[in-house]
Amino acid sequence: MIHYPNGSSFQQGKLATKKGAVKPVTNYGKRGMTLEEELNQANQYYQTKGLAVIHKKPTPVKIVNVNYPARSAAKITEAYFSQASTTDYNGIYRGHYVDFDAKETKNKTSIPLDNFHEHQIAHLKAITEQGGIGFVVIRFVVQDEVFVYPANRLIAYWQNKATGGRKSIPYAEIHDHGFRVPTQLNPTVPYLAAVDQLIAQLP
Amino acid sequence: MIHYPNGSSFQQGKLATKKGAVKPVTNYGKRGMTLEEELNQANQYYQTKGLAVIHKKPTPVKIVNVNYPARSAAKITEAYFSQASTTDYNGIYRGHYVDFDAKETKNKTSIPLDNFHEHQIAHLKAITEQGGIGFVVIRFVVQDEVFVYPANRLIAYWQNKATGGRKSIPYAEIHDHGFRVPTQLNPTVPYLAAVDQLIAQLP
Repeated sequence: MIHYPNGSSFQQGKLATKKGAVKPVTNYGKRGMTLEEELNQANQYYQTKGLAVIHKKPTPVKIVNVNYPARSAAKITEAYFSQASTTDYNGIYRGHYVDFDAKETKNKTSIPLDNFHEHQIAHLKAITEQGGIGFVVIRFVVQDEVFVYPANRLIAYWQNKATGGRKSIPYAEIHDHGFRVPTQLNPTVPYLAAVDQLIAQLP
Repeated sequence: MIHYPNGSSFQQGKLATKKGAVKPVTNYGKRGMTLEEELNQANQYYQTKGLAVIHKKPTPVKIVNVNYPARSAAKITEAYFSQASTTDYNGIYRGHYVDFDAKETKNKTSIPLDNFHEHQIAHLKAITEQGGIGFVVIRFVVQDEVFVYPANRLIAYWQNKATGGRKSIPYAEIHDHGFRVPTQLNPTVPYLAAVDQLIAQLP
């Protein structure tokens, strides 16, 4: 039996009310949600509250063929996933330009650097040079912990790898130099609380 | 015969050199380029010079069916264009979060408000409330003039329309309250020069 911070208990996909009646769970909690879905939910929450405007960019697709049937919407009949030239998320928070990617790893002791791509690192470097807030949101699935990890440290690990350094970032490094995202019910991943700490440390 | 600022002359898609030899034009100038292509070129220029990091977002596509052939890339076989929930461009410039859309009109005296969508206006309103720089880049094709027009004035016209006001923004309004983008060879649409003027007028 799991107890939520608000005192309600969770059991087999149902929320038990105080009187013992059981009602179906809608979309609270993160059961079955990917980190991406949780971040989208958090962004929607933040926007509704007027706290931030942050969106996930559409998946980049290279369109090869489109049919235009009469009296119907254009139908794409051949297309391929293409590699993004930037990160997946950006927007504005507390007047700052914020920019990040999200990664999940089932690895317990480190996150392999092959979760990242050269163009993502280059993009994060470019935006931090412009004064933007760059980071990655990393979930360690086994520990069920989420961190906001600053772009500058990720970039340092990336550059170090290129000159023969280690091929992953240790959990301990992220634990010590990232900012832990608290766990709560709604939104389930309140990552801007961790971004507040990151901003507080800026020079 | 057209003469460029640098003194070279342009004739039927060729650049005449001083000695009279003719070489093919590559991709300078805006012949055949859409405003979108010109803005992408400008953004590439600005990023290369380290002045800004601004990208066009991928076209949003609703993917319905994907085939995964053995030993080949995943092929999307059914998808549809979907409506964006934000504007097309955003990024960071001089530490500011910037966010905009681009519109071309062949109308000489005004730009019809049906060039815009409710969600674009709502998004521009949300980002200006967060302290972001919101605007639209508008080209009047007949005059061949491009303006950076501030989001707050566009929003006022939009809201006025909803209560029975006019259905377009007059050219004269955009001329008087927008910021003219100068014409030059590379980039052909140096719109950040006009954004500088917009920033200078901020309260």
